[in-house]
Amino acid sequence: MRTSIATVSLSGSLTEKLTAASRAGFDGVEIFENDLLASPLTPEEIRARCADLGLSIDLYQPMRDIEAVPAEEFARNLRRARHKFELMRRLGADTVLVCSSVHPLAVDDDALAADHLRQLADSAEEFGIRVAYEALAWGRHVNTYGHAWRIVEAADHPALGTCLDSFHILSRGSDPKGIADIPGEKIFYLQLADAPLLAMDVLQWSRHYRCFPGQGGFDVAGLVRNVLDTGYDGPLSLEVFNDVFRQAEAGPTAVDAHRSLLVLQETVGVATPPAPVVPTGVAFAELVTPDAEPVAAVLGALGFARTARHRTKPVDLWRQGEARILVNTSGAARRTGTGLAAIGLESPDPAGAARRAEALLAPVLPRRRAAEDAPLDAVAAPDGTELFFCATDRPELPDWRADFADDTGVSQGTEGTRGSHGTDDTGGPHGTGVHRIDHLALTQPWHHFDEAALFHRSVLGLHAQESVDVADPYGLMRSRAVTNADGSVRIALGVGAAPTDDTVHAQHIALATSDVVAAARRFREAGGWLLPIPANYYDDLAARHEFADGELETYRDLGILYDRDAHGEFRHCYTMTVGRVFFELVQRDGYRGYGAQNAPVRLAAQHTARAVIGG
Amino acid sequence: MRTSIATVSLSGSLTEKLTAASRAGFDGVEIFENDLLASPLTPEEIRARCADLGLSIDLYQPMRDIEAVPAEEFARNLRRARHKFELMRRLGADTVLVCSSVHPLAVDDDALAADHLRQLADSAEEFGIRVAYEALAWGRHVNTYGHAWRIVEAADHPALGTCLDSFHILSRGSDPKGIADIPGEKIFYLQLADAPLLAMDVLQWSRHYRCFPGQGGFDVAGLVRNVLDTGYDGPLSLEVFNDVFRQAEAGPTAVDAHRSLLVLQETVGVATPPAPVVPTGVAFAELVTPDAEPVAAVLGALGFARTARHRTKPVDLWRQGEARILVNTSGAARRTGTGLAAIGLESPDPAGAARRAEALLAPVLPRRRAAEDAPLDAVAAPDGTELFFCATDRPELPDWRADFADDTGVSQGTEGTRGSHGTDDTGGPHGTGVHRIDHLALTQPWHHFDEAALFHRSVLGLHAQESVDVADPYGLMRSRAVTNADGSVRIALGVGAAPTDDTVHAQHIALATSDVVAAARRFREAGGWLLPIPANYYDDLAARHEFADGELETYRDLGILYDRDAHGEFRHCYTMTVGRVFFELVQRDGYRGYGAQNAPVRLAAQHTARAVIGG
Repeated sequence: MRTSIATVSLSGSLTEKLTAASRAGFDGVEIFENDLLASPLTPEEIRARCADLGLSIDLYQPMRDIEAVPAEEFARNLRRARHKFELMRRLGADTVLVCSSVHPLAVDDDALAADHLRQLADSAEEFGIRVAYEALAWGRHVNTYGHAWRIVEAADHPALGTCLDSFHILSRGSDPKGIADIPGEKIFYLQLADAPLLAMDVLQWSRHYRCFPGQGGFDVAGLVRNVLDTGYDGPLSLEVFNDVFRQAEAGPTAVDAHRSLLVLQETVGVATPPAPVVPTGVAFAELVTPDAEPVAAVLGALGFARTARHRTKPVDLWRQGEARILVNTSGAARRTGTGLAAIGLESPDPAGAARRAEALLAPVLPRRRAAEDAPLDAVAAPDGTELFFCATDRPELPDWRADFADDTGVSQGTEGTRGSHGTDDTGGPHGTGVHRIDHLALTQPWHHFDEAALFHRSVLGLHAQESVDVADPYGLMRSRAVTNADGSVRIALGVGAAPTDDTVHAQHIALATSDVVAAARRFREAGGWLLPIPANYYDDLAARHEFADGELETYRDLGILYDRDAHGEFRHCYTMTVGRVFFELVQRDGYRGYGAQNAPVRLAAQHTARAVIGG
Repeated sequence: MRTSIATVSLSGSLTEKLTAASRAGFDGVEIFENDLLASPLTPEEIRARCADLGLSIDLYQPMRDIEAVPAEEFARNLRRARHKFELMRRLGADTVLVCSSVHPLAVDDDALAADHLRQLADSAEEFGIRVAYEALAWGRHVNTYGHAWRIVEAADHPALGTCLDSFHILSRGSDPKGIADIPGEKIFYLQLADAPLLAMDVLQWSRHYRCFPGQGGFDVAGLVRNVLDTGYDGPLSLEVFNDVFRQAEAGPTAVDAHRSLLVLQETVGVATPPAPVVPTGVAFAELVTPDAEPVAAVLGALGFARTARHRTKPVDLWRQGEARILVNTSGAARRTGTGLAAIGLESPDPAGAARRAEALLAPVLPRRRAAEDAPLDAVAAPDGTELFFCATDRPELPDWRADFADDTGVSQGTEGTRGSHGTDDTGGPHGTGVHRIDHLALTQPWHHFDEAALFHRSVLGLHAQESVDVADPYGLMRSRAVTNADGSVRIALGVGAAPTDDTVHAQHIALATSDVVAAARRFREAGGWLLPIPANYYDDLAARHEFADGELETYRDLGILYDRDAHGEFRHCYTMTVGRVFFELVQRDGYRGYGAQNAPVRLAAQHTARAVIGG
C-alpha cells in the first residue's frame, strides 16, 4: 500500500522534512499548514520539490471549525476555504481535511453540519478537490467516527467523504468494527497513530504523546484490518504529534516511522517481508577500546582467557564457558573510548536475519573484511550498536570464529579444534564459573528509545517487556528489556532523563554464573575491584528478608545485591567501569527480571565511586 | 514556622541534598528511604551531618502496605518495622510515615486497619517514635484524609496520628474544610506539594508532575490555613516528586523550594517579609557585548542615539523616547557573547524592593561601583539576569543616570539637564518613533522555568499569565509572560524543548512604536536588516482577514506580522540577531498578547536566516 506521513511528525524546515520522508521510503506526505506558512518556498516550488523527491501531496489541513457555526461565521469560512482551495491547486494537493468543529458557537445540528459540508464540497469540487471530514475525539458535538459518517452520508455529495484517524477512534475506546458500515470509496483518507495507554486528558494526550504504530498500546493493526475490509485503497498515513519527535533528527525519525508502517502492513497481511529469524543466543559481545590493557585486566580477573586473535584485524577473542568477548583495538575507539560496540547474535539463518533487517530499513553494514575472512552479516541498531548474525559450532553454517586463530595459528571454530578449547569451559585455573552472557545493557539515544524497542521487536523478533522507571541520583532513567522466548538473548535498553544525560552507568555486560559468591571472591582475589554497596542497603535486606547466618555479611563484603520475584532469586554484583562499560556477575535462580529494584542503589554507588576514584 | 523538605525533592547524593537544603535555609528534612540506602554514610554519620548543617530529621518513610493485610503479612511488617524503628533511633528521627495500603491482599476493614496501626504504634512507642498515617490518593481502600483520620481516631493510641498531604487531598478534589474536625495535636505531620491542573491518572501525576506551592494550580495556601486553624505547629514540609527537579542542580532547586514556603507563609499570614514593591516601568535594558559595533549599528538604525557614557565603566547609554538601552563592553561579555544581561526596573521604592528580594532568597548583587557612583540596588533573577531597582526623573530619589555623562561631561538625570535631552524624544532625525520598551523576552534555563515564574510573581509582585506552547521547527518551546497591572512592565519568560536546546531565538527587546510601518521603513532606510517573512504567511493572512488595499503588500515587503485579540490589533517585525539578542518593533493597539500565534513562523524564519547568513 502507499505510505504517507504528515510533516508535523518530523522536525526541521519543510524541505528537511520532505527530504527525510523521501529517503525513508514514503510515497507521499500530508503538509501541515504551519510548515507551509513558515516555508520560504512558494506552493509551486513545494510541489516541484515533492515531485523531485517522488512524493505526492496526499492531504492538506488548513481549516478548523468550519461547520455548524452561525451563518456569518460560515460565510467567512467559505471565503477562507476558497483561498485555501486555490492554494491547494497550486500545490497539487487534491484532498482537504476538515476536522469536526470545536468552535464555542457550533451547534448540535447534524442537518446544518451536513448542509455546510455540502456547500464546502460544492466549492471544493470546482477546484477538483475532495473534502475528508474527520471526528476529533474532543469535537464539540461530533466526536465519534460513526457520527461523522452519518453527517457525510446525509450530505450525500460526491466530493465529500470521511477521514478515519486511529488515535481519535481508539483513544475514546470506540469499537472500530462499525467501520464496516462505511463504503470504502467514502473513506477518503486514513490517518494512523498509536499512543501509550495513559489515563489523561485526550487533547493533551493527542498533542504530546502520539507515537508510531507498534510503539504504543492501541490495536492499530486491528483497526487497519477493519478499514481494508471496506475496500479502502488510499494511503496509510502517519499523523503523529510527539514532543520527542519534534526535537529528534528528521532522518532517523522518518526511518522509524516508515519501519512502523512496514511492520503494520506485515501484521495485517498486505506485505510479506522476509520472516523474522529469532536469535537463539549471544555468540559474542564486542568491546572497542583504544587501550586493551584495562579491559584485559578486568577480563582476566573475571576468569576469561584470551584464546585467539583475528587473522587480519586487531581483535582478540576472550572466552570463558560459552561467554565470548571480543576486544577490538582498531582506530575507531580512539574517538569514542572504551564501549560496547557490537553483539554477535547466534542465528539459525544469518542471511535470512540480515534480509529481514534490510527489508525493515536497518542499515546493512559493509563487511569490513579481508578477502580471506568469512562473510558476516551485520546491521546497525538505532543506537549504532552493530548486530552480527552468526553461527557458533554449527556444522551446516560457517563459524564466525574461522577468522580467529590461537597463538599457535590453529583456526578456531572448525570441527577439528572444537575439543581443543574444552579445557577453558571451567574458566581454567582462574575461572569464575561464568558460563554465558546473561544479558547486555545498551544505552539508547534519548530521542530514539521507542524506536529501539520497535526495532528489536520487529527486526529481531524479540519480545519487548514493559518499560520501567529507575531513579538515578541525577534523574529518572527508563529501562526496557527485549528477550527471546527462552531468555538466551536478553538485551536491556536504557535511556537517561534528558538528551544531555550522563548515561555512562547504563551500558554493561552481565555474565551468568551459578555461584556469584564464589565468582565474586575469585574475581577479587585475582585483583578485580567490585563496586562497594552501602551497609545501609544490607540493613534493609535484613529487615525485608530472612537469610542464613553469615549470608548477608558475605553479600555486604562482596557488594552482592539481592532480589526475588515470583519465579526465584537473583544475586548480582558489579565491577569497576572501564570507559563507558562495566561488567555484572549474576546468579539467576529462576528469577526473570534484571534487578531494577536495586538499580537506584547501584547507580548511586557508581556515582560515589566515580566521585572518589574517577572510575 | 519550621520548614522541611523531603530529600526526594532534590537531586544528587544524600550529602549534596542535605547541604543544599541547609544552605537554602530549611530547618529540617524528611529522609527518603532510597537516599539512605544508597548513602555510604552510616545512620549515625547522617545524623551528625544533619546536626552540623542545622537540620533536624523530621520524618522517615521506610514502609508501605502495613495495615489491613493478612495476619502472616502483618507479622512480617511488624518485624520489618522494628528493624526500621531501630534505624530511626540511630538516625535521631522520631516520626515515621505510614501510607495507606495499596497491597492487593489488603481488605476493606477499618477495625482491622485500626488494630494493626495500634500494634504498630505500640511497637514504635518503645523506640520513642510516633506513627503518622496518611491516605494516599490511590490507596486501595483508604484514600481520603477523612477516612485515614477515622481509623486513627478508632485506634486511639498516643503514638498514632495522621499526616496530611496537600497533593493527596487536593488532587482528589477533597474539601480541606473537614480538616477542622481533626485535633491539631493529632496531625503529626503536614506534607505540601502543588501540581499543575492536569486531567490524568493521579499516580502518574503525583510521581512526575508535583511542584512547589505557588507553581501549580492547587489552593495550597487555603489548605494550610485549614491545618493551622487546628493548632498544628509541626513543620511545613515539601514532598515533591518531579522529573525536572530530579535532574536540576540541588542548590538552586532548594532555594526555589524554600522561597515557595516563604511566600506561602506570607500568604497565610504567619510571616511578614517586606511587602512587594511592584515596578512601574522599565528604566533600561542592558546588553553586554564584546564588540559594541554591531549593536551600535542596529541601535542607530532603530533610531536610538548614544546620549551618554558611564563615568567609570565602559557602558554607553542609548536612548529614544523613554526607551533606554545600555551597552556594556566590560570583560564579562567576552565569554558569553552579546546578550541581554540586566534590566532596570522603575521602582517606587528601590531599597524596599531589594529588601523584599533578599528576604525571598534572591542573590543580592555587589554594587560593583566606584566610590563616587550612585548606589544601585540589584538582585539576580533565576536565569542570571541582573535586576536593578531604580528611579528615573523622580526628584525624591537618586537618578540612576547620575553616573552617566554626555560627551560634554554634563551629568544625566539631574534636574538641570532633564530638558536637554528632550530633543531626543522623537528619536532625532533618524528616529523611528520608538517611545518605550514594550516587553523583554528572556530565555530561562530548562530546569528552572517554574522557578522563574514564581520568582517574578513573588519577588517583583508581577502577575503571571498562562504558559503557552510555541512550535519551533526543532521542538516545542514554552513561554509565559509576567506583567504589572498597567502593562508598563512585561517580561516574556521562554524555555526550550530540552536542556540542550538552542534558545538563541527567544531573547529579545521589543520596542513600542505607534506606527510600525513607518518605524520599519526608517529602520531599513537607515541600513537595518528586517527578518524576511515567507509570502505564504501573507496569503494565509489574506484568507483569514480583510485588509485595506496595499496593506498586506506593505507588511509582506517589511516582514510585518499581524495578530488580533478581543482587545485590539498587533503588528510587529523583527531585526537581525546580534549574538544572542534581537529586537522587535511592535505596534500594540489595545492588543494584550505577544503574537504567540505568529511565533512558529518567526522562529522558522530565524532558523532559515541563520542557515543562509549565519545571522
